[in-house]
Amino acid sequence: MAAAPMIELWRGGLLESQHAGHAVIWGPGGIEAAWGDPDAVIFPRSSCKMIQALPLVESGAADAFGLTPRQLALSCASHQGAEIHTRAVSDWLEALGLGEADLRCGSHLPYDSAASQALVCSDTAPCQIHNNCSGKHSGFLTLNRHLRGGSEYVELDHPVQRAVREASEDVTGMTAPGYGIDGCSAPNFATTTAGLARAMAFFAAANPEGTAREAAAARLTRAMAAFPEMVAGEGRACTALMRAMGGKVAVKTGAEAVFVAILPDQKRGIALKITDGATRASEAAITALLIRLGALEAADPVAQRYLTPPQVNRRGIVTGEMRLAPGFG
Amino acid sequence: MAAAPMIELWRGGLLESQHAGHAVIWGPGGIEAAWGDPDAVIFPRSSCKMIQALPLVESGAADAFGLTPRQLALSCASHQGAEIHTRAVSDWLEALGLGEADLRCGSHLPYDSAASQALVCSDTAPCQIHNNCSGKHSGFLTLNRHLRGGSEYVELDHPVQRAVREASEDVTGMTAPGYGIDGCSAPNFATTTAGLARAMAFFAAANPEGTAREAAAARLTRAMAAFPEMVAGEGRACTALMRAMGGKVAVKTGAEAVFVAILPDQKRGIALKITDGATRASEAAITALLIRLGALEAADPVAQRYLTPPQVNRRGIVTGEMRLAPGFG
Repeated sequence: MAAAPMIELWRGGLLESQHAGHAVIWGPGGIEAAWGDPDAVIFPRSSCKMIQALPLVESGAADAFGLTPRQLALSCASHQGAEIHTRAVSDWLEALGLGEADLRCGSHLPYDSAASQALVCSDTAPCQIHNNCSGKHSGFLTLNRHLRGGSEYVELDHPVQRAVREASEDVTGMTAPGYGIDGCSAPNFATTTAGLARAMAFFAAANPEGTAREAAAARLTRAMAAFPEMVAGEGRACTALMRAMGGKVAVKTGAEAVFVAILPDQKRGIALKITDGATRASEAAITALLIRLGALEAADPVAQRYLTPPQVNRRGIVTGEMRLAPGFG
Repeated sequence: MAAAPMIELWRGGLLESQHAGHAVIWGPGGIEAAWGDPDAVIFPRSSCKMIQALPLVESGAADAFGLTPRQLALSCASHQGAEIHTRAVSDWLEALGLGEADLRCGSHLPYDSAASQALVCSDTAPCQIHNNCSGKHSGFLTLNRHLRGGSEYVELDHPVQRAVREASEDVTGMTAPGYGIDGCSAPNFATTTAGLARAMAFFAAANPEGTAREAAAARLTRAMAAFPEMVAGEGRACTALMRAMGGKVAVKTGAEAVFVAILPDQKRGIALKITDGATRASEAAITALLIRLGALEAADPVAQRYLTPPQVNRRGIVTGEMRLAPGFG
């Protein structure tokens, strides 16, 4: 099935660019709404970090090392390397008796402008702690310590990644049709848009008093929603949207325009993928679906910021607008 | 007609993201090849800067002010604000007895990393001369001086923009279906993919000894191809592709994934638009069509860089590949 038109950019009263994708809303009864192809195979990329963190919690590793909800939120993060993130990761590694060199995520300049500027202007190279995935990797290292695995914890057959794969296939309800190597070098298990939505619905409906996996899912969802600044950072969509929803909903973006949402009050999960990989469109699309489900007020300034971001030019002149495509949202 | 699949991104042996668009190759006999919808209305954005510069040359303004080929190339540029660009614009404005405040393009940080870093690390705000369109606007100011127009040269009914509209509609062979305000505040006249390709073919076939418009088109094409570093900058696709083609072809990108090429030896023009606005795809697509026409060697490292840019992660591990969609290129 073809991708469904979702987001349009207009200029001077004419359509200039457009984005299509696949989206699924999964509720207690299964698929409640879908656009595009629910069975389209996608890579969840960083949108599945809460799935990758399940073994950390359900194995008992998180408790054995006394991880706080703030750290659990960081283990699900694509953080922007601001000081609150890098300090938290440094402290975490130190508590494990490990260091930056034990990470296997690689380095890149922080997305946080102040942190990036500080490095660039002092001609200092970023390290692996600045990597947006360093919280997830700290979680991997914590689980690895618990499992007494080898140092190369991102290898496909390593106990850490075998546990991640088992959890991913369980909550998505399907055998992974394949895997890719992610930007941070960890395996990223492919699924379908419906499979990822099903996984988010599992998190939404997870009973804190249920199985170890259900309890872990409920804890991770609460941690993300309670510490939105640790999941992304100031000025980022995930953080702003979670704050706007008052800690009742957890959302997570992934590279190449994937976005998911966990709505515990409704026992619903959302997953969407913009087929061209444009973040401007995935942010608008998830916002539209959160409004559709009543989790976010359409009039909320945060909703407006991502649903219809002002299209202004270098002199502040409004040059066009972003719109939902007919039939979407 | 629907957009045609053009560029695909693969990871772990699975298709992760894809880009579709419209493209037309226009030769002496008209349309020679097309993908997607030749009649799709598009905004050329910065890809039409050589069209916007036609009145500057054909009016005699360029000669009256002794503009060099290097300056003509800059008048067609989306430069990256490196020192060679900002110095050239400053000198040009000074020669006109004008200054930065006479520009109407607005300010933004230079795309050139060294220039951007110098401003950021010295806490200096960028000025309008850093704007990637400041060369085009210097051309507008030069024409305006010649026409003795008012200071607001970006207004739709200003003599400068009326001249640009007349030239645009003439070379595209159609009345503009509308216009938008561009990032630099100048009107950007809509056309179709076929209309933009027709315009590029006009430039390609223009006789230097022909009409004032033909002579101007031939001069601008030669200037762009002769000074590729002035049209964009080091490390940019336009500059690298023109260098790789040894000054025989002029190419120009535009915002929201438009790309055009002028091939004088073949009297052919190319225009393409990726409907989602992704530059990674427009750069790969124009490279594929330049190779198709024999203007660029497929084995050329520059061709490889834009046709199949290495998909590597933070640790330099190859994670996937970019491919042409079946039936394109």
